[in-house]
Amino acid sequence: MRAGPSQEEVRRHNLGTLLRYVHIHGATSRAELTTKLGLNRSTIGALTADLTAAGLVTEKAPRGTGRAGRPSLVVRPESSTVYAYALNIEVDRLRAARVGLGGRILDRREAPRPRGMQVVDAVQPLAAFLDEMRRDVPAGARYVGAGLAIAGMVRRADGMVRLAPTIGWVEEPVGEALVEEIGDVGPLIVGNIADVSALVEHNRGAAAGRDNVIYLYGDVGVGAGIIVGGRRITGHGGYGGEVGHMVVNPYGRPCSCGSRGCWETEIGEYPLLRMAGREDRSGREAVLGVVEAAMRGDWVAQQAVRHVGQWLGLGVGNLVNIFNPEAIIFGGTLRDIYLVAAAQIRSRLTEVALPACRENIRLRTPELGTDAGLLGAAELAFERLLEDPVGSAG
Amino acid sequence: MRAGPSQEEVRRHNLGTLLRYVHIHGATSRAELTTKLGLNRSTIGALTADLTAAGLVTEKAPRGTGRAGRPSLVVRPESSTVYAYALNIEVDRLRAARVGLGGRILDRREAPRPRGMQVVDAVQPLAAFLDEMRRDVPAGARYVGAGLAIAGMVRRADGMVRLAPTIGWVEEPVGEALVEEIGDVGPLIVGNIADVSALVEHNRGAAAGRDNVIYLYGDVGVGAGIIVGGRRITGHGGYGGEVGHMVVNPYGRPCSCGSRGCWETEIGEYPLLRMAGREDRSGREAVLGVVEAAMRGDWVAQQAVRHVGQWLGLGVGNLVNIFNPEAIIFGGTLRDIYLVAAAQIRSRLTEVALPACRENIRLRTPELGTDAGLLGAAELAFERLLEDPVGSAG
Repeated sequence: MRAGPSQEEVRRHNLGTLLRYVHIHGATSRAELTTKLGLNRSTIGALTADLTAAGLVTEKAPRGTGRAGRPSLVVRPESSTVYAYALNIEVDRLRAARVGLGGRILDRREAPRPRGMQVVDAVQPLAAFLDEMRRDVPAGARYVGAGLAIAGMVRRADGMVRLAPTIGWVEEPVGEALVEEIGDVGPLIVGNIADVSALVEHNRGAAAGRDNVIYLYGDVGVGAGIIVGGRRITGHGGYGGEVGHMVVNPYGRPCSCGSRGCWETEIGEYPLLRMAGREDRSGREAVLGVVEAAMRGDWVAQQAVRHVGQWLGLGVGNLVNIFNPEAIIFGGTLRDIYLVAAAQIRSRLTEVALPACRENIRLRTPELGTDAGLLGAAELAFERLLEDPVGSAG
Repeated sequence: MRAGPSQEEVRRHNLGTLLRYVHIHGATSRAELTTKLGLNRSTIGALTADLTAAGLVTEKAPRGTGRAGRPSLVVRPESSTVYAYALNIEVDRLRAARVGLGGRILDRREAPRPRGMQVVDAVQPLAAFLDEMRRDVPAGARYVGAGLAIAGMVRRADGMVRLAPTIGWVEEPVGEALVEEIGDVGPLIVGNIADVSALVEHNRGAAAGRDNVIYLYGDVGVGAGIIVGGRRITGHGGYGGEVGHMVVNPYGRPCSCGSRGCWETEIGEYPLLRMAGREDRSGREAVLGVVEAAMRGDWVAQQAVRHVGQWLGLGVGNLVNIFNPEAIIFGGTLRDIYLVAAAQIRSRLTEVALPACRENIRLRTPELGTDAGLLGAAELAFERLLEDPVGSAG
């Protein structure tokens, strides 16, 4: 319960707020910033001057506006020179990108991740990607830090990966391993991929402007990034959002976590492929294969999709009763399921969720696709800059 | 995304922060306020002078401290003169109280509520309670407003009770009905009883100092008040926390909401009494009867308690995976169940919840008992004062 801020804290807060605004919304006129941030014109002018001097934004007159009078200068984030590295460890894929302020992907690399790959083997290709991308960084560019998003439970305090059951890792200090492999990368923040994806879909994607959002991310497992009242919630240690381990079918199948009937035992990749008679395959391509077969009229595939759709609707209904959200976003393989089973999911959701809890709900697919994980990982790195733009710059 | 505050906003914020601190923590020395609020001594002095002038706090030298030097003045909330009315509509009980700043119950009334009682009939005794209590208000006391907490879903925007299934009400403007009955009561805020109980247990009770808390409130139905990162979360329209309608047993019994296998169909009052062979009874007394019979060794009652304990542990496990909380508080009839089935609840919770999500969890009973609902309703009224103490006073 801290009391009010000092003048210096107010200035830092205002610098961060302005930079965050253009980071999220892109090029914005001074006039619009004045309105949106509730500050007067001279304050906005002073703040943009400071941010320009720190090399974080540029200001330019807009192209002919067709209106009389001096046009308001347009403030842009320095996307090409201020950058972060973003890394993703997904169940089947390793991704890396160099991301400019404002969320622009400047360079990218990716490789398949064989299931069963150990930490040390995942870290090597990621380090190689960083090395390659470093070579193309223009002179004078400013590095902010690196973010790593992983499909697992990450301890907020130090980035330790406590459990990534779908990846098969337990108590792995992935961040440390990465630093050991590539040397100092500056500040490296580790987060959960559903959490950070929720954040960017909330900032710039399918849930822009909505303050109560659940982003579901599915592959072998199912996790959620949850935004409540505009803030990401992750609980005491950072492990919240493990909706895939909500028991929905107590008499159902054993789960990899040791419990039984967890949501992911009904809607994850394995039950879908098993019911479709394709237990010999795995991964997103295999899931897409089932979805396409269902669309072509394959009865067995349709039954499998229907099964997952029913349970997906039930679990989403539970979450709607708990959170009364405005938007549910179906990411990862759940996106593919949603696209063929939307009516069924909605119908089951309607049975389970109370009318008041679901009355303003929108079901959506991600707008940023698989980039959400990379952009979200970059956000982890940008966050420090946005908290204190000029302090970090100094 | 508002930018930094003005000087006047900072002052208002500081006044509110100081008043909130003594409202929650009771009498506090200036020295401690200086430390806790991170403000210097002269600012604290100016703020307490303003609050004293507004009649909201008093300052006194402490009794002999046994230490040398001038002792720091102690700041107390004006509990005896600044007050709110608090009203509760529970499934079996109507309660009313006059509550002083600082959460002191100055006067109280209660009456049983027959099940099936309509809004108009519930409003009359509550209005009579207010009338009685008004007569004893000392001259010069300052009325802040009234809060009404109800076991139902309340629309945040206007306090409309959308659905109170256990009470049997749908779309009832209870606040309006109350005002019609007793005339103007000033600002009247309506909220959900689990939400406001969570708030006071978080402020002053079993979860003081913990920022991630789930307060479960059970009677016929089950609701939750959820605190995440120190803030109460209620979702887009105010209807979140309906954990009693999380489906946990899809092949289970029909629920009053129209769905099937909702958590409350396994842990609410009805399944407990049914399994104990006491379907002819109802209410907290009947639940206590089963619990006591189980403690005396009655086998049928033990089976009923065991059943509820199992399902209670499962659902709590689900919530722990979703929220990674620090504390779960068992309120209402769930308190009675918890006291005899704690080991079993914990064991089922341990099976369902992931180790990282549950590693810092504490299971607790409420410290404020049935007063939590009254103190919470009063908080709804005090909130306006705490937002802007001197503005409202002026």
